[in-house]
Amino acid sequence: MPSSLDISKLLSGDRRTIARAITFVENDNPGAEQFLAEVYRKTGNAYRIGITGPPGAGKSTLTNKLAKHYRAQGLKVGIIAVDPTSPFTGGALLGDRVRMSDVEMDEGVFIRSMASRGSLGGLSKKTREAADILDAAGFNIILFETVGVGQSELDIAGAADTTVVVLVPESGDGIQAMKAGLMEIADFFVMNKADRPGAEQAVMSIKMILGFRPHDEHSWMADVVKSTASEGIGIDLIASEVARHRAWMEGNGSFLRRRTAQMRSRIEEIIRDHFTVTFWNTARKQQLESALPAILARTRTPYDAAGELLVNDGR
Amino acid sequence: MPSSLDISKLLSGDRRTIARAITFVENDNPGAEQFLAEVYRKTGNAYRIGITGPPGAGKSTLTNKLAKHYRAQGLKVGIIAVDPTSPFTGGALLGDRVRMSDVEMDEGVFIRSMASRGSLGGLSKKTREAADILDAAGFNIILFETVGVGQSELDIAGAADTTVVVLVPESGDGIQAMKAGLMEIADFFVMNKADRPGAEQAVMSIKMILGFRPHDEHSWMADVVKSTASEGIGIDLIASEVARHRAWMEGNGSFLRRRTAQMRSRIEEIIRDHFTVTFWNTARKQQLESALPAILARTRTPYDAAGELLVNDGR
Repeated sequence: MPSSLDISKLLSGDRRTIARAITFVENDNPGAEQFLAEVYRKTGNAYRIGITGPPGAGKSTLTNKLAKHYRAQGLKVGIIAVDPTSPFTGGALLGDRVRMSDVEMDEGVFIRSMASRGSLGGLSKKTREAADILDAAGFNIILFETVGVGQSELDIAGAADTTVVVLVPESGDGIQAMKAGLMEIADFFVMNKADRPGAEQAVMSIKMILGFRPHDEHSWMADVVKSTASEGIGIDLIASEVARHRAWMEGNGSFLRRRTAQMRSRIEEIIRDHFTVTFWNTARKQQLESALPAILARTRTPYDAAGELLVNDGR
Repeated sequence: MPSSLDISKLLSGDRRTIARAITFVENDNPGAEQFLAEVYRKTGNAYRIGITGPPGAGKSTLTNKLAKHYRAQGLKVGIIAVDPTSPFTGGALLGDRVRMSDVEMDEGVFIRSMASRGSLGGLSKKTREAADILDAAGFNIILFETVGVGQSELDIAGAADTTVVVLVPESGDGIQAMKAGLMEIADFFVMNKADRPGAEQAVMSIKMILGFRPHDEHSWMADVVKSTASEGIGIDLIASEVARHRAWMEGNGSFLRRRTAQMRSRIEEIIRDHFTVTFWNTARKQQLESALPAILARTRTPYDAAGELLVNDGR
């Protein structure tokens, strides 16, 4: 680990050290695990909130306003954006750029964007590790922002204590949200841009679908909160709903159960990454290369080549 | 493998057998690999085209029209939709439903949607296997439709012979496409909804960025094609550009190089999936469970628990 990465400086909240520590982790530097193990022991203070939903739902604006809300309560806020369409990450595929400079200038806010591509399956591992770094550095609230189409929102639901799914009236009805798998991960929904036509109807249709889910008196009942984040309307309601969900989880032991389940999959991921790195030694890489021409010619198949690599595993 | 899964029926193009074969693979049924190895030997006839881009770019409409274009040439077309926002998959997060019934009724078209979530990292494996099944069943063209935010479009670029990135004037300029990582995967761009304001400017900015990339006289130069897919305008240009890319690749050996690289990562994926299944035997699952409380209490870390699991690997 670079001598400049001083864990005591990290724990004191030094911004330069935080930034370097996240980069260090992002680059999979040797020594990262030892450093992260030290960091992990100092975590446990931050509450982690996932904010997901389709592109154009206003997630970045909402994240921005929610950060300000917590700042006004004196809390330090870390933002991790893994959304390629987010202005935080510089993506903004749909062109809806939001100025973030007001929170960016705040010393009590740390914003980090992480690439959602490339590193094979390592995104959720790295996101969690970046959150650990911010947690150890004294941030009280960590906001993950990610686009809810595909796999990334599942990763975030696996790293967050409370997952908020942001929709807009144009997102379609509750049945569509259910089909897209958003019902399973939402601890609650936000109907953003609620001043637009159709908002009331969209809220009702989601509530109806939520009511159909099997539940008893011990179940958490996900609700729908309305907001117009660009005007700052409804941000307090969102924060209250997060607090209500947190209190509910802490009151009945489900907070620990959720963190335990997340830790289980986190360790599975560490082990999966490990295999990918150690399995592919020089001999096996060569064995694969020499098998490829016959496979491409269809005299062999990828399955028997994989089988041979696994049998001949060098032990 | 179920006795109803008759490979000769599959090879004859029987639709019911194709559907069952894909379900069989999707469910990871025991015997799937043996079946897929047989299927793999019969592949090699289909050309695989990936269609990706941000939600709302009109990918489904374009896929639909492109399928009709190839049908008019007498080619059989398979469509694999892994886009949770696509009307093919029933997602349509942004509400932009397109009627697909005209191609859905055509015996020469087979449409299959695949869930882009859940099965850990197995999506690209299953997508490729579904494509193999369609290839072996006599389909000449396979269209993959996927939303281009995050990981799924990379998976598709890894399965397609030609990758088409669909944008609209509102998608932002070339710099944003570059930041979103679309430049690296696009064999060419389509500026869809080209009748909208700003289309010409958007095309120019992408062309400018493309021109800045390092290249020499042997490089493929990705171009930008304009279309208004909803009116059927530009579909022939897209098909021509696919044909030009294919001819270029076949002429200089890069077709085989691309398929070889794809096969390499395909085998890596088979092996990764294998480890996930075999590593987690009962003893290791129990070892993980008993380590969790101390980790949650932060007297241990996920890294040392993972290390212990890896050392004590049962051999």
